[in-house]
Amino acid sequence: MRALVLDHGRLQLLDVPLPSRHGECLVRVTMAGICGTDLELLKGYADFSGIPGHEFVGIVEAVSRPEDRHWIGQRVVGDINIGCGTCRACQDGLKEHCEARQVLGIRARDGAFAEYLTLPSCNLHPVPDTLTDLAAVFVEPVAAACRILAQVSVGPASRVAVMGDGRMGLLIAQVVAEAGASVVLLGKHDDRVEIARRMGIEARRSPGSAPGQRRRFDLVIDATGAADGLAEALGLVRPRGTVVLKSTVHAAGTMPTWPIVVDEITIVGSRCGPFAPALDLLARGAVKVDSLVTCVTGLDEYARAFREADTGLKAVFAIS
Amino acid sequence: MRALVLDHGRLQLLDVPLPSRHGECLVRVTMAGICGTDLELLKGYADFSGIPGHEFVGIVEAVSRPEDRHWIGQRVVGDINIGCGTCRACQDGLKEHCEARQVLGIRARDGAFAEYLTLPSCNLHPVPDTLTDLAAVFVEPVAAACRILAQVSVGPASRVAVMGDGRMGLLIAQVVAEAGASVVLLGKHDDRVEIARRMGIEARRSPGSAPGQRRRFDLVIDATGAADGLAEALGLVRPRGTVVLKSTVHAAGTMPTWPIVVDEITIVGSRCGPFAPALDLLARGAVKVDSLVTCVTGLDEYARAFREADTGLKAVFAIS
Repeated sequence: MRALVLDHGRLQLLDVPLPSRHGECLVRVTMAGICGTDLELLKGYADFSGIPGHEFVGIVEAVSRPEDRHWIGQRVVGDINIGCGTCRACQDGLKEHCEARQVLGIRARDGAFAEYLTLPSCNLHPVPDTLTDLAAVFVEPVAAACRILAQVSVGPASRVAVMGDGRMGLLIAQVVAEAGASVVLLGKHDDRVEIARRMGIEARRSPGSAPGQRRRFDLVIDATGAADGLAEALGLVRPRGTVVLKSTVHAAGTMPTWPIVVDEITIVGSRCGPFAPALDLLARGAVKVDSLVTCVTGLDEYARAFREADTGLKAVFAIS
Repeated sequence: MRALVLDHGRLQLLDVPLPSRHGECLVRVTMAGICGTDLELLKGYADFSGIPGHEFVGIVEAVSRPEDRHWIGQRVVGDINIGCGTCRACQDGLKEHCEARQVLGIRARDGAFAEYLTLPSCNLHPVPDTLTDLAAVFVEPVAAACRILAQVSVGPASRVAVMGDGRMGLLIAQVVAEAGASVVLLGKHDDRVEIARRMGIEARRSPGSAPGQRRRFDLVIDATGAADGLAEALGLVRPRGTVVLKSTVHAAGTMPTWPIVVDEITIVGSRCGPFAPALDLLARGAVKVDSLVTCVTGLDEYARAFREADTGLKAVFAIS
């Protein structure tokens, strides 16, 4: 099959053997999206070699266990963490924190920028017919946005700032607004601020030194993907407020910690989330993704797609 | 009166006028302790000029409101935050987060390294007769340790590491152990590790590269007072665990944020705490402080006292 293979920071389109794993399902990938983490992998984050890609939709073509036979032909998205199954984290249902975990296209397992991938059936979720492939590609990042709601209390009284007008920022703002909070998206690009507004989200250019906007938010969610995102978030959150970190940035920020102590700020790292609410939000149109897709192309145009993911919004591979 | 006055980083013993504030009580300071924050103030933290010192015990000598008359002659310790009384934080009972607050000896208000100070009566707490002056000096830092218990869940199942064998580390370890947790104090000095052990606390030298100790703690409390304390704490806490930051360090650490995201760590800044449980813990001997005092001296020997606070444990001024 054809696949994008990352080897020591170099990405190439190669012919590689079809994946096969005992006990798992073979999924023909129809579409796969490029995420900020993929861009970080190319810069060396997580020291990953192999096929990247973890946001996908596809069709189950073959299974290796008889009890999985009903999955064949099913259109699916997939949870990206595969735990060892025996450690304490796995037994507590926290396979995404299993120390020996594989993560699709990120850690010790080939991913979705390929014609086929494999996953255990317990990782798969059927995609409702009402959801297009292009929307289904967003289930994984919308799930990651939903994770925030399980970690911090968000309600009608919450004043929330979402920092970052990239893919994740625009998804998070919609998810948090849907939870009833008063949301402001703080962006750096006029066109994306405009996209947010058309989604019904209050949005403006990042405050810089505008004093009225500083330190008033109960919750600040950093989806900038920038090393100094946390420091900027600390300038926006009220005393005893919460900052959620959503971006995996392969760089170190320099930051004094005393403001965290003096203002008793809580900082929460947030990663993968639940697929069920994400599928629901997308299926009923509560999270809109059409305006986020700025490039759909084949695997052979990967250079263009990655460039677009770096400078534009969502680039999606139409694979089969 | 005689007072230590900090002016642009220079500390001097001077004769200054007796403090007087309408509506407040005049307290004759009997003893006052030097804290890590005082050492930071000397380095420029909080840009403070005036009389430092916020850990004290004293006797109320005069009051300016008739309804405070019963305080006269009372031995007291004092809550160090004075709010504006009218802002939202103050109305919510969070005067320690009032933006216009004064903080005794730290922010916009002269402190306790002087023969007298003033505080509103609502900040004062009577000291039980069973508590010596030397123990009462520790009420404020023990209250700060108690604050942690109000912020994070600590119980018999909690595996807690306290980083730092200084004054705060040794107090925090006792407070958290008293809450029932399994506590390990990680220190850098053999003699202080030994002090912790004599208090009944499991204690050892900081792990360095000992792999068995890494990443197993549900809760890591950083009381090192070091700029790289947070980075070290992140190496000790388990995925989805919590790091509490307890030191105000006037320096910036460099730190990648992706481990916070990937392991979904929660970081909690923690400052001032409740006096009532601190008085109780000290009065019933559940927190022991005798072995923490390494220097008791007069204000005139301030240079020696600050040197001792920097290299040893608690230095206390015996003032009147």
